[in-house]
Amino acid sequence: MPATALIAIDWGTSAARAYRVGGDGRVQERRHVPLGIKHVRDGRFEPALAKLLGDWQPTAVPKIACGMIGSRQGWVEVPYVDCPASLTALADHVVQAPQDALAIVPGVATRDAAGIPDVMRGEETQLLGALGTDERGVLAVLPGTHSKWARVEHGRIVDFTTFMTGELFGVLIDHSMLGRLAGHEPGRLSRDGFSRGVARGLDEGALAHDIFGARTLSLTGGLRSDDVADWLSGLLIGREIRAARMWALRAGIDTARVRIIGSDALAERYELALADAGMLSERGAEDAAAHGLWRIAQRAGIVAATVNA
Amino acid sequence: MPATALIAIDWGTSAARAYRVGGDGRVQERRHVPLGIKHVRDGRFEPALAKLLGDWQPTAVPKIACGMIGSRQGWVEVPYVDCPASLTALADHVVQAPQDALAIVPGVATRDAAGIPDVMRGEETQLLGALGTDERGVLAVLPGTHSKWARVEHGRIVDFTTFMTGELFGVLIDHSMLGRLAGHEPGRLSRDGFSRGVARGLDEGALAHDIFGARTLSLTGGLRSDDVADWLSGLLIGREIRAARMWALRAGIDTARVRIIGSDALAERYELALADAGMLSERGAEDAAAHGLWRIAQRAGIVAATVNA
Repeated sequence: MPATALIAIDWGTSAARAYRVGGDGRVQERRHVPLGIKHVRDGRFEPALAKLLGDWQPTAVPKIACGMIGSRQGWVEVPYVDCPASLTALADHVVQAPQDALAIVPGVATRDAAGIPDVMRGEETQLLGALGTDERGVLAVLPGTHSKWARVEHGRIVDFTTFMTGELFGVLIDHSMLGRLAGHEPGRLSRDGFSRGVARGLDEGALAHDIFGARTLSLTGGLRSDDVADWLSGLLIGREIRAARMWALRAGIDTARVRIIGSDALAERYELALADAGMLSERGAEDAAAHGLWRIAQRAGIVAATVNA
Repeated sequence: MPATALIAIDWGTSAARAYRVGGDGRVQERRHVPLGIKHVRDGRFEPALAKLLGDWQPTAVPKIACGMIGSRQGWVEVPYVDCPASLTALADHVVQAPQDALAIVPGVATRDAAGIPDVMRGEETQLLGALGTDERGVLAVLPGTHSKWARVEHGRIVDFTTFMTGELFGVLIDHSMLGRLAGHEPGRLSRDGFSRGVARGLDEGALAHDIFGARTLSLTGGLRSDDVADWLSGLLIGREIRAARMWALRAGIDTARVRIIGSDALAERYELALADAGMLSERGAEDAAAHGLWRIAQRAGIVAATVNA
């Protein structure tokens, strides 16, 4: 195994994922620690980093991070780079934390059709890690609490748009009247309930009206309590896909195929919903953040560029 | 003052409003008690009614109620009447609670364009109380946790549609990341923040994306923390008005003028938002539920019909 050349960290609000990356760009070891920036008190990021790295610590290799660590609540606030954002633009705007402890990648900003800002931190790196620089006209989705859809062209993030789908689902299930109707079988996916919700979401409608359907369908025997959560999840994901598809079509992008960046149960839901929408999907590469950080570190001269980068 | 002819109760989930109504149909006395059906344990509705009526109790006058008291969780489940629902249809389907303690008005059901059921309990009575039987082509809104928009024609509820606007606002402010951005000045309305939200809501867009604007505008200095809640309230109410207007237009209804049934701070927000949308609004009569119950009681023969009904 080649020597470790880079420590790459996807450092978010709740958790941090750290990777040891070899000189060939391959991930040698990974760890996932609940040491997100919201758990770091009084700006004590240096000890947090030491704890995160643990026995990797003595290595003299460079370290780079993306995500909320570069936000106002993070270690150093790294200004956003505007769309279209290339690998070079991101690399050029990397900022060093005090004592060169860590290089931090900027987030990316854009504006929607109404002129309202949109932002990402961390997802830009995953996008550049998951997609090849030779790919053009890619429509990608990063499912999550705040799902991001992006148009990527030759390793450049042309534009993106955020949907608070995961957070909306969470607050509705945990705190609204709809959650009180829902049975509790965490982990199980009701394919039928989910698909019926997706169908409703793919259709036009006002979300504040359509979510009430979970209540009225339950009340009238049209939806089992065990299916309520999946119906609602399907409705929200379906509506997101409908809106993202229109967003991409307005930009003249082919929407027949979508790259899903993610590998968890949520990514699987997007795969199912996209199939219901008649769209093809494929999963992005694993360890997208680590690959993206490797590429940015190379472009920024933090590690030596290699031919196969 | 004429003798009390009817005790009318709008008996909801959280609270009950009771009215003493004279033989001339006028409200003589009103009380508002936090004795909603969710506070009634083990089906003990008879003592709850006695408590609600208090010193009105010895009167031998008939009693009638609308609202969640007729739901599955209420005293007696009264089946929904389908739209179009006339005063006569509601009166014909009134159900008596045990020992004729109370007559209970049915709710009303319909289906939306996608065939998904929609329901109301209590609002049908307010609609029939607030609008004259000689009025045609009325578009009315009952703002609330679950706002209802209805088309009413000659005292007949032709159709209606529900928006979970109030509940969505509540869970987002109390439990989502957007609430953590919001300053806390309850009661104060930021006219500027609200109107900017309304403008965004009246425009087209995907709600799960648009609500994220509260975060990005805050982050980029485009929205003061004290304005976040009102911006979000405006966005949700504006989007509701946009959708309700399209719903009414599809039915060929004139949307230039809207009747707002309600008299609280929320009704005032709808008044402002409708003005921003270029729509005229007027407030419905006070004590709408009491008037509606009086009319239904007359039509059902529970009290004698009068000439001026």
